[in-house]
Amino acid sequence: MSNESKRLKVIRIESFNAAHRLHNPSLSDSENEKIFGKCNNFNYHGHNYKLEVHVTGCIDPVTGYVIDLKILKNIIKEEVLDRFDHRNLNLDVDDFKQLNPTAENIAIVIYEKIVAKLGEDYDVIIHLHETDKNSVVYPC
Amino acid sequence: MSNESKRLKVIRIESFNAAHRLHNPSLSDSENEKIFGKCNNFNYHGHNYKLEVHVTGCIDPVTGYVIDLKILKNIIKEEVLDRFDHRNLNLDVDDFKQLNPTAENIAIVIYEKIVAKLGEDYDVIIHLHETDKNSVVYPC
Amino acid sequence: MSNESKRLKVIRIESFNAAHRLHNPSLSDSENEKIFGKCNNFNYHGHNYKLEVHVTGCIDPVTGYVIDLKILKNIIKEEVLDRFDHRNLNLDVDDFKQLNPTAENIAIVIYEKIVAKLGEDYDVIIHLHETDKNSVVYPC
Amino acid sequence: MSNESKRLKVIRIESFNAAHRLHNPSLSDSENEKIFGKCNNFNYHGHNYKLEVHVTGCIDPVTGYVIDLKILKNIIKEEVLDRFDHRNLNLDVDDFKQLNPTAENIAIVIYEKIVAKLGEDYDVIIHLHETDKNSVVYPC
Amino acid sequence: MSNESKRLKVIRIESFNAAHRLHNPSLSDSENEKIFGKCNNFNYHGHNYKLEVHVTGCIDPVTGYVIDLKILKNIIKEEVLDRFDHRNLNLDVDDFKQLNPTAENIAIVIYEKIVAKLGEDYDVIIHLHETDKNSVVYPC
Amino acid sequence: MSNESKRLKVIRIESFNAAHRLHNPSLSDSENEKIFGKCNNFNYHGHNYKLEVHVTGCIDPVTGYVIDLKILKNIIKEEVLDRFDHRNLNLDVDDFKQLNPTAENIAIVIYEKIVAKLGEDYDVIIHLHETDKNSVVYPC
Repeated sequence: MSNESKRLKVIRIESFNAAHRLHNPSLSDSENEKIFGKCNNFNYHGHNYKLEVHVTGCIDPVTGYVIDLKILKNIIKEEVLDRFDHRNLNLDVDDFKQLNPTAENIAIVIYEKIVAKLGEDYDVIIHLHETDKNSVVYPC
Repeated sequence: MSNESKRLKVIRIESFNAAHRLHNPSLSDSENEKIFGKCNNFNYHGHNYKLEVHVTGCIDPVTGYVIDLKILKNIIKEEVLDRFDHRNLNLDVDDFKQLNPTAENIAIVIYEKIVAKLGEDYDVIIHLHETDKNSVVYPC
Repeated sequence: MSNESKRLKVIRIESFNAAHRLHNPSLSDSENEKIFGKCNNFNYHGHNYKLEVHVTGCIDPVTGYVIDLKILKNIIKEEVLDRFDHRNLNLDVDDFKQLNPTAENIAIVIYEKIVAKLGEDYDVIIHLHETDKNSVVYPC
Repeated sequence: MSNESKRLKVIRIESFNAAHRLHNPSLSDSENEKIFGKCNNFNYHGHNYKLEVHVTGCIDPVTGYVIDLKILKNIIKEEVLDRFDHRNLNLDVDDFKQLNPTAENIAIVIYEKIVAKLGEDYDVIIHLHETDKNSVVYPC
Repeated sequence: MSNESKRLKVIRIESFNAAHRLHNPSLSDSENEKIFGKCNNFNYHGHNYKLEVHVTGCIDPVTGYVIDLKILKNIIKEEVLDRFDHRNLNLDVDDFKQLNPTAENIAIVIYEKIVAKLGEDYDVIIHLHETDKNSVVYPC
Repeated sequence: MSNESKRLKVIRIESFNAAHRLHNPSLSDSENEKIFGKCNNFNYHGHNYKLEVHVTGCIDPVTGYVIDLKILKNIIKEEVLDRFDHRNLNLDVDDFKQLNPTAENIAIVIYEKIVAKLGEDYDVIIHLHETDKNSVVYPC
């Protein structure tokens, strides 16, 4: 059997712990509180984010890998964990200085960073879990 | 970065505990027992159903949400949990008076109820787990 | 190193799916409904029960086992799964004809059955999960 | 079988999302950073805390319950979730104004609050998970 | 409601425990060690593989099933578990005598076996988890 | 509140992937096969072992820690993961050259290594999961 031209998806799961607050600076405080409720709490709250990175590509006939997971793990570490883990997303991370750190926006930001590093040989999907009950997938 | 026209999927997970019995009223008792085995037990058995509701739509530039999860949570509560939780699906739920409550049929019924409430701006997928080992996805 | 007189606990996890209804036959219907609420639903509801059986004993120097898990697995199957799985606890299981099938009482019944089979060389603890959020431990 | 004098443990699991920062105000900033590293991040980080409350007591012969879980659920809601969920533990919760909110100290604070409400008929243990890999148990 | 022509996916989860070693026999030992690192360990290492088999097809109006899960369970047992469980993939399984048993290649082999048994009425996807953090999906 | 003399347990969870074979060298091959069945497979099989290390001690009033988890994490890495992960327990690990690597014996070996490093200020318990269904606890 020759598997070399076959396409598969590989999934790597990592996690990071961060504080955030849902807040749109272009709205008034009362509008923010009305829309975001307790998620707008002035002093922040936080989450253990679970991050699934899905990478689709062709299997390499020499290695039997779609991608060496050590490479993917390092990209996730450098692009996401080193910037987001044990941080306040609103205050410590430039990407969210003007962007409301909803799970949706965090997933989009992570997607852009990882795609920029992985290049065009791979299709990427981000599945970000904010809690055990709430998660988002981008793109789809 | 402007994320406003981007499409994402958000997933909300809930659960309900219900009794059921697999039984097609148009078949004889012996045919039902032959097809459904112990799942046809006359006095019912039950499950902790885990329900994933996947909702795909465009991100709202004001909120950074695809949909406010409080709205989705309330729809799931009113349409599914208030009707199915701590009930006997065959006896207490009108949808299954004539319809065999297999995981497949339960997922389709839940899909119809949630789509009717969410409207046409969103694409919905139901992933219903009957046990840790068995689940169904609709549509696909 | 000689481990032969050391005591360890081994844990085996199984599951069963059953219907039940919380109801004390010595109380009136209105008292039952007041105490048990939706858990008293006349037509039953159900659960995927997750059962942990903890067995403590001395390690056997020949096998390196506290107990051969095939033996423990068979005892759980014969004493619990074959009697409870895909059944209605109130109607189909003699143990609960007079006994309210709360998680507490189910755990005690399972404990008695397994201890009777395992004999006095082992200490047994039952940890029964009714849902992901509710569980009971007996004895303690 | 009469189970009325038997002792069992019941376990209820809840969760809350909070921001915190490990910081002992009686130490210098450099000492705090040396001891707590990235957990000392000035702008806070956060977690999805998973809280297990273990309650041991005698089974009630009328209900078949050790404790009605609705009562326990309400106590956890009022004493813990309403105070901690979507809050900054250091800034928003009086208990941690002078007390470093390590998982250990959070577990002790939760224990004191729940014992004060449950009274002396029950033994309580708190198992608090800060992440999927780190948790603490008090008392023991 | 008539569900008979609707398409759904059903998912069955099983697991097997196996030893393996990543090694491409057409490469030198030093090349293998360079590419595969500790996964190339001469004496093998091992995993609890978690296998999700996704089967998409039309619902049968008589049974309310896409496929009877007893049939799917038996196919997985005969085609995968009986050949792979408690085995050394490199030494004991013919499929991997010439094929490097990466998660990708294992997923492709499992896919071919299950499709050959299920026939053309169903679409099959294999999601194979090597650890809690690493998994692959085929085809996609 | 002064928590300084209070005792708590902290739990750290890690994992390692290893091959093994259940085999007592002092027994004949047929006796080994009779006792250990498929776990005796000549060419080994393997597991993702999940390791819980429970450490009980008094809370430090300066740090609010029972033990700095970075210290515990490093001890587990040096004593267990660096020796067992991606290895064949029977062939690559001295501790099991004469000792049958059952989950019980692996837990005892891990306990001895960690206690030797942690010293007498702490009580240690090892909870080792061989699969999602089977685990052992030592001592108890």
